[in-house]
Amino acid sequence: MAAIAGEARSSQGNVLFVREGYLPATSFQLIAKDPGSQARLGSLTTTHGRIDTPIFMPVGTQATVKAMTPEELTEVGSQIILANTYHLYLRPGHDLIERLGGLHRFMHWDGPILTDSGGFQVFSLGELRKISEEGVKFRSHIDGSAHFLTPELSIAIQGALGADIAMCFDECPPYPSPYDYLEKSLALTTRWAQRCKKAHTRKDQALFGIVQGGMHPELRRESARQLMEIGFDGYALGGLSVGEERSVMHDMMHACSDILPEDQPRYIMGIGAPEDLIEGINAGFDMFDCVMPTRNARNGALFTSFGRINIKAAIYAEDTGPIDPACGCYVCRNYSRAYLRHLYRSNEILASRLNSWHNLHYYLDLMARARAAIAEGRFAAFRKEFLAARNDVKS
Amino acid sequence: MAAIAGEARSSQGNVLFVREGYLPATSFQLIAKDPGSQARLGSLTTTHGRIDTPIFMPVGTQATVKAMTPEELTEVGSQIILANTYHLYLRPGHDLIERLGGLHRFMHWDGPILTDSGGFQVFSLGELRKISEEGVKFRSHIDGSAHFLTPELSIAIQGALGADIAMCFDECPPYPSPYDYLEKSLALTTRWAQRCKKAHTRKDQALFGIVQGGMHPELRRESARQLMEIGFDGYALGGLSVGEERSVMHDMMHACSDILPEDQPRYIMGIGAPEDLIEGINAGFDMFDCVMPTRNARNGALFTSFGRINIKAAIYAEDTGPIDPACGCYVCRNYSRAYLRHLYRSNEILASRLNSWHNLHYYLDLMARARAAIAEGRFAAFRKEFLAARNDVKS
Repeated sequence: MAAIAGEARSSQGNVLFVREGYLPATSFQLIAKDPGSQARLGSLTTTHGRIDTPIFMPVGTQATVKAMTPEELTEVGSQIILANTYHLYLRPGHDLIERLGGLHRFMHWDGPILTDSGGFQVFSLGELRKISEEGVKFRSHIDGSAHFLTPELSIAIQGALGADIAMCFDECPPYPSPYDYLEKSLALTTRWAQRCKKAHTRKDQALFGIVQGGMHPELRRESARQLMEIGFDGYALGGLSVGEERSVMHDMMHACSDILPEDQPRYIMGIGAPEDLIEGINAGFDMFDCVMPTRNARNGALFTSFGRINIKAAIYAEDTGPIDPACGCYVCRNYSRAYLRHLYRSNEILASRLNSWHNLHYYLDLMARARAAIAEGRFAAFRKEFLAARNDVKS
Repeated sequence: MAAIAGEARSSQGNVLFVREGYLPATSFQLIAKDPGSQARLGSLTTTHGRIDTPIFMPVGTQATVKAMTPEELTEVGSQIILANTYHLYLRPGHDLIERLGGLHRFMHWDGPILTDSGGFQVFSLGELRKISEEGVKFRSHIDGSAHFLTPELSIAIQGALGADIAMCFDECPPYPSPYDYLEKSLALTTRWAQRCKKAHTRKDQALFGIVQGGMHPELRRESARQLMEIGFDGYALGGLSVGEERSVMHDMMHACSDILPEDQPRYIMGIGAPEDLIEGINAGFDMFDCVMPTRNARNGALFTSFGRINIKAAIYAEDTGPIDPACGCYVCRNYSRAYLRHLYRSNEILASRLNSWHNLHYYLDLMARARAAIAEGRFAAFRKEFLAARNDVKS
């Protein structure tokens, strides 16, 4: 499983090519498996550095994780961030970013970057979208201009951005969708994945496939099987957290993980709440991303070891304590709830900054504690304690 | 001029009182005078530390310098900040801040703080204001609630906040105002200054008087004379940058500085552009504050050694250079104009952050360079070079 210089292997372990001086774009090493769950500890090496898994990836939609500098992202424990192909394609344009030296240099982040394929945003933000075999016609949410995104263009954009990990362009069907539509959509996503694989030439960039199939375990497994046949550097679940019940989302995680290759990274896209991440880890997944910590922060919703609080609440008006007495982040070390409430009510930029800082620290610290628990073979107990300590959300 | 333990002196050098263990709230030491101008180099010691003068004070209106952390303020060279009595009185309330341990602790800034008196904001923001001998009735700009601000209340608020330097409550007449109105207003400001002096009991806090008198040098001098008779720890010019021509503002600076005590700090409130600060220093002033660097930053207007630029401009779309090649700040070291333009156009919080960081660094670096020039007796030449290098604003 360890990387061999000059060799690249498919998901089935087939040698894809051997080249003088070549190193695979990513190599995943499975370090430990938890005895009481599917949880796994791993190490993913990318062109811009190594990542400990399970990991959470802060979302830097427009080439910035909202309200944070790259140095602060490192301070809160970020090892890899996500950027959005759709947004950067529309503004400032992937070609411009490429001419300026790529996304890492553009945004002053030299750690690993994963880019999504643009698929999800085309379906959630793009207007008047029209799907064909070739790709998706849509209008920009910024200025209404017409665009046509194809698997080949998505890969070209992600190549121009210079992401360490690119994602296949997929169709994200709405929830709920009829069974036969989901079957056809899944087949289209597979054909698009084949085209992505063919179009993908950047050897310093990994390419992950995206499993679809709605909320039907058998469709999810069929999608996974088809993608594995093509062979990718890692596999993701797409189309979750789209309005389904939390228990259904968790069922989908468990339905897919055991058929995905054990020696490759597994990623659940766009989730979620802390309890979703813990369940994803429990089901054997390694990578997660979500706007929740930063978006909630800007709305005053803060994550703590005892559940969520909203800093707007009048009970915090004279509260001299930190957000979370159990937290050791910069914000909890230096600022009171009373001050944070004042900043929020006064609509100050520092409110968004400090709240985002704390929430990202919470997410990344949760991942670090989950990794430690797996390393010590006590993830099942860790998960139980985590869920028991929270008084706001039921698992 | 040096502080004597157990003694406090008035501006005329009279011993005000002697007390066991007493140290004056501030002591000002004049270090050097420039041979070719009125510029002076000084050192002002406050309860929370020493300040090199001339100095610029970033404005922290609502207990935060917009978009900046206290650590970043220190990194850009801030030695003292200003907070607004009017805003903090209305929200979250000075009594609340006092109960929480004072403004320094509340906002996590342990350097010196100067608070204004609330006078300027009452006149510029307060609604339905009504001036009487006793004080000013006004309605809050936030919720319309009725308030009555008096010299005594202003001093009580500034005492509760725990500012190192408090300002006398003054009337700020609109510009232009009739001569006889300005005369009466000036006399009222003097009577209010007497009441402020009487109400001021906090021994760890300095109290500065505010010179008014519109754009009439003789009224300005009369106001200064009356305030000096009362005796304060320092003197400020209020009511400048209210719509008058730049040359008129500069004339007022020069009209007042020579009659103010040489051995006490001189402060011009609410100005200004970099060229106004340089002219204020040229006229013999030591302290300045203005929202310009932070407010302009949030609008994309950036200060450079060659004048102002607006980062919105299309010419910066692919500009890989820093804001100012002559600047060594964090922003100029790490980010391109192209990226900053992208952030601004994308309405990202990081745009306000990085632009504020750079602009404050510019202001504080300008003060540091002015101090170095005075120390070396070459301020006149420094001023000339400064004005010549700028291609956007005429002196």
